[in-house]
Amino acid sequence: MINHLDAQSADFSQAFAQLQRRESFADVTLTDTVSKIITAIHTNGDHALLEYTNTFDNRELPSIAASEISQKQQRNAFEQLPNSQRQALSVAADRIRFYHEKQRQTSWQYTDDTGTTLGQKTSAIERAGVYVPGGKASYPSSVLMNVLPAKVAGVKHVTMVAPAPNEVIAPIVLAAAYIAQVDTLFTIGGAQAIAALAFGTQTIPKVDKIVGPGNAYVAEAKRQVFGKVGLDMIAGPSEVLIISDGSVDPKWLAMDLFAQAEHDEKAQCLLISPDTQHLHAVKQAMEQLLPTMPRQAIIAASLRDYGALITVQTMEQAFTLSNQIAPEHLELAIADAPQWLDNVEHAGAVFVGKHTAEALGDYCAGPNHVLPTFGTARFSSPLSVVDFQKRTSIIQCTPQSANVLGQVANVLAQAESLEAHARSAAYRCEKIND
Amino acid sequence: MINHLDAQSADFSQAFAQLQRRESFADVTLTDTVSKIITAIHTNGDHALLEYTNTFDNRELPSIAASEISQKQQRNAFEQLPNSQRQALSVAADRIRFYHEKQRQTSWQYTDDTGTTLGQKTSAIERAGVYVPGGKASYPSSVLMNVLPAKVAGVKHVTMVAPAPNEVIAPIVLAAAYIAQVDTLFTIGGAQAIAALAFGTQTIPKVDKIVGPGNAYVAEAKRQVFGKVGLDMIAGPSEVLIISDGSVDPKWLAMDLFAQAEHDEKAQCLLISPDTQHLHAVKQAMEQLLPTMPRQAIIAASLRDYGALITVQTMEQAFTLSNQIAPEHLELAIADAPQWLDNVEHAGAVFVGKHTAEALGDYCAGPNHVLPTFGTARFSSPLSVVDFQKRTSIIQCTPQSANVLGQVANVLAQAESLEAHARSAAYRCEKIND
Repeated sequence: MINHLDAQSADFSQAFAQLQRRESFADVTLTDTVSKIITAIHTNGDHALLEYTNTFDNRELPSIAASEISQKQQRNAFEQLPNSQRQALSVAADRIRFYHEKQRQTSWQYTDDTGTTLGQKTSAIERAGVYVPGGKASYPSSVLMNVLPAKVAGVKHVTMVAPAPNEVIAPIVLAAAYIAQVDTLFTIGGAQAIAALAFGTQTIPKVDKIVGPGNAYVAEAKRQVFGKVGLDMIAGPSEVLIISDGSVDPKWLAMDLFAQAEHDEKAQCLLISPDTQHLHAVKQAMEQLLPTMPRQAIIAASLRDYGALITVQTMEQAFTLSNQIAPEHLELAIADAPQWLDNVEHAGAVFVGKHTAEALGDYCAGPNHVLPTFGTARFSSPLSVVDFQKRTSIIQCTPQSANVLGQVANVLAQAESLEAHARSAAYRCEKIND
Repeated sequence: MINHLDAQSADFSQAFAQLQRRESFADVTLTDTVSKIITAIHTNGDHALLEYTNTFDNRELPSIAASEISQKQQRNAFEQLPNSQRQALSVAADRIRFYHEKQRQTSWQYTDDTGTTLGQKTSAIERAGVYVPGGKASYPSSVLMNVLPAKVAGVKHVTMVAPAPNEVIAPIVLAAAYIAQVDTLFTIGGAQAIAALAFGTQTIPKVDKIVGPGNAYVAEAKRQVFGKVGLDMIAGPSEVLIISDGSVDPKWLAMDLFAQAEHDEKAQCLLISPDTQHLHAVKQAMEQLLPTMPRQAIIAASLRDYGALITVQTMEQAFTLSNQIAPEHLELAIADAPQWLDNVEHAGAVFVGKHTAEALGDYCAGPNHVLPTFGTARFSSPLSVVDFQKRTSIIQCTPQSANVLGQVANVLAQAESLEAHARSAAYRCEKIND
């Protein structure tokens, strides 16, 4: 059901490299289809958007305006939820908000010894769009994780879009939108929704930045509007890597691996341990538990194609391999887990100790669950408030400081053969300032 | 030589919209050519890189290793510079370093009332690649502006690449690399250099993030390796917008506009003022000064095709237009400039007061000169130390806090029909923890 590799074996480095080679979608038909949809929305606005929505989502909307779900409807959805769900959503939202408030950056400035005042002004992006997948999967947690950082940043207007195929959208998604205080919500989706947010239509407001996960069409549409509008990362297949010292109940780890695998056949689940007996026990637990899982087909495919148990010689070696993978999620199922934290060089999020299941972070611990996938934790970061803030540099010279800086700039501009730069600087210098 | 628009005229909004419609390059042949180059480098490494470099740059290198310029050679270049240039480079580097040190983010963590410890670990990206254009243009300032933020962030290894067509590379570029403490420097360029940095070759180390400006091939190559490697923004045509109250010497403003225009025929130069006489005077100054400029052909083309003087009724209106443009560079040539700063909503960098020419910021004021172009200041920011840092979320539950969070996660996971998530969370709850 899952490969078992040994880091000591001769062919390990090849097998390990193979593990890192999951291809993400890149399909010419997809590119073309999406490009046509984007052009149609760009050219025909609401008209094209309505046609695509009614066709692709099997709906009979008379207008795009009719796809809007009012705040009153959102509130009704919230109020009609079971008590347990209403409470869970509220606790999760409060915790996420609290954590993200610590990320908010502020403006600063200083005056240096030349008298020049320099600074950085931080302000919120004005308008953000949040894509939330719909259909069979319903992800209220995505609503909270994508909308709340924007709200904490101070974004004035958050437009959420989520498709409602066959007129169906989960009430708990609307309830999450209510709690997160989404400003406008339209039940549109797919590449057409991304294009509508990027360019604006008669009804859908153009936004400055689009965030949120989606299927292959949505990802491709984001790729194609890159540069016209700000984007979060384009999520690849998701992964968990667990480092275990053998001290944790095998059943727990089996279920943690399943939790990652149930997302997607392309998800990757890796468990690394110096304790081979322990790895066998986890495998046994997996075999025993798999038949009880509703999504066992997806789980089995993911584990078979991309999963691995890896025996290493030492815990240090486990961390070396983990840093090579740069996993989205890293669980440290280790008795003295906090002491190993410094060994982590690249990871999206670290779940420290056996009680910290990834699932807790997915929903409610506080940090964002939108994380860099597929090794991109080497250079990118969890979605954060900073992604909804922008910075403007401030430079203010006095006549005296311009005289100092102007001479430096003049020399360098001349070295770059940029005469207008050189003279523009020289005008601010007393000597040459005729 | 430059259009003069009046914000009161009937067709102004159309003309103004037209100003914002500069198309950036998007050319099918270019896409194909670059895609072939990238594939060749990905497949054949040094061998392909050597062939492209010798062909495109008219060189006769025996190997890619032979394209390396040692730190000793860089130091020699620095030591042989004229005194004025050596000093100017050093002052600029010190000022840039000082400003950027204020941007460095640190790690933080806290323990909340459930006993859960939450945090954000900030660390430097390991390896960065900096592209510096070569050939006729030689930009030591680009070296400083792209390398120093990486160094301040703590990047362990900075690889700089810069083409040396016909074996020529400006000594001052090497000197800037020396001052900025580049770790490795290769004289390679074009799409092939971007591909080499993205995938690594036998000689060129694979990097985690690539920054730096380049021509259309370089920009397209960056677009194509997006996601495999981190990137700075892909720079579009550059622009300056000056708001003048009429109190500034027309000659100064003419030269400031020229300084932007001399970069590129596609650069955009806008001057907005409520004082029509003043705009006429600036136009006159431009006519008088243009024949004295070495790059007058480029300047004239830029001003003719994309430049504009705009008469407005009020200063407030000038800021409204400026915020619509979201200019890369915004000069406030206004007597009481600091008081107008709050009116700026979207801009890459603001140059406050008539003594603060953009050229001072381009070279040595301190803030970065890599700025969001073409309206992207609505959602993106100057290159900064933060771009060379990455964040990892830290979550650490106690058995007690896992019990609290596990129940919340369990409810939400069930609502999302993710059974493995629900059970993984439940295992951490006392009640269900068999």
